[in-house]
Amino acid sequence: MIPRLLVSFDLAAGCDHDGTEAHAHYLRNVLRRGAGDAVSLFNSRDGEYAATIAELRKERVRFRIGALTRPQAGEPDLWLAFCLLKRDATDLVVQKATELGVSALFPILSARTNAAATRLDRLRAIAIEAAEQSERLTVPTMHAPQTLPALLAAWPTGRPLAAAIERAHAPPPTGQRALLIGPEGGFSAGELDALRAAPFIQPVSLGPRILRAETAAIAGLALLVRAAW
Amino acid sequence: MIPRLLVSFDLAAGCDHDGTEAHAHYLRNVLRRGAGDAVSLFNSRDGEYAATIAELRKERVRFRIGALTRPQAGEPDLWLAFCLLKRDATDLVVQKATELGVSALFPILSARTNAAATRLDRLRAIAIEAAEQSERLTVPTMHAPQTLPALLAAWPTGRPLAAAIERAHAPPPTGQRALLIGPEGGFSAGELDALRAAPFIQPVSLGPRILRAETAAIAGLALLVRAAW
Repeated sequence: MIPRLLVSFDLAAGCDHDGTEAHAHYLRNVLRRGAGDAVSLFNSRDGEYAATIAELRKERVRFRIGALTRPQAGEPDLWLAFCLLKRDATDLVVQKATELGVSALFPILSARTNAAATRLDRLRAIAIEAAEQSERLTVPTMHAPQTLPALLAAWPTGRPLAAAIERAHAPPPTGQRALLIGPEGGFSAGELDALRAAPFIQPVSLGPRILRAETAAIAGLALLVRAAW
Repeated sequence: MIPRLLVSFDLAAGCDHDGTEAHAHYLRNVLRRGAGDAVSLFNSRDGEYAATIAELRKERVRFRIGALTRPQAGEPDLWLAFCLLKRDATDLVVQKATELGVSALFPILSARTNAAATRLDRLRAIAIEAAEQSERLTVPTMHAPQTLPALLAAWPTGRPLAAAIERAHAPPPTGQRALLIGPEGGFSAGELDALRAAPFIQPVSLGPRILRAETAAIAGLALLVRAAW
């Protein structure tokens, strides 16, 4: 397996460029790679390039960039707004949403949110790792956690937001470009009122069965991705 | 939150019945419940009953069965055959498939299977826990791990099996009552030949993006559940 790495520098065939200390650590200590080994690099704008490790020391890695292997392509314009859950469940949502191709993630601090102190840099790292290990050429935008009223106030009104707040009497998500998933205990009465008053909210049902929040996020995204492809 | 427990005994209003030592441990040490507290019981055949804890000691619990709260209902007839993955990924597949309503699980030992020594009783315990924590009235049947040739040889030929073995040139799963998901490294050439030769195999695509095996299982089931509801 050839490691895929997100880098920040420009990619062009024939150039050398240093990776980060984190890249060096990951290649050397986690993957046990060395000079001459192949990697694959992407930076969200120049496509994907074959590269080799020109030099690898404890805190330093230098890449030799080879040929373009995949030109940059647009990702689907699909957003996920999700209430922060317990740590493992939040991690799962970020990882699977990234794999499924979501372009932007909006973590929400709802009235019944479990996780007060989620570190944004941790969530970003999970999204980067999931992008590296899938075939994405981009990394989803990870917005800072905000309350539901703040999210609704700033929402672009022309973008329908499928909200999994109904059990069985709503249609499945079909073609919306954004999905909202509530917290484990459901939205509060006040939050539900705010959702019902927002003109861009479209209530949807994910089926006859109550799903855990993280399962609802993955299943709902699978349906939206299906409608988009 | 009222604990939901799977029991093996018959359920009828007004009866007392002993739970297992595992029930006693879970209620007493994990959930910190005591005599008089409410539980909810199901056994896959008599529906769901309200009950109270009549007595709770270290290794013994006695339930007093109250009123029927939900009559037994049929579950969708949907099977998942999946190659055993790394432990966390396998656990996730079993948990989420149970939540999504799968009626039978077929773990497969494929040529590229990661997990040689998966304990069947562990997988069954994960399915039971997921059933208890969702609203299922049944627990999916967990078959013993078998090779792909053994699975194919014993498959009921009248049941189309959607196989996620094509990338983009196959239709999405639509209405099949069974899904087959390969191992992390994909099926071997010999396994793919066997699949192509099986008359009940219907190749499907889960979209333009390569998904991890466990993500493919959840996303594929979400599409099949959607088609069934």
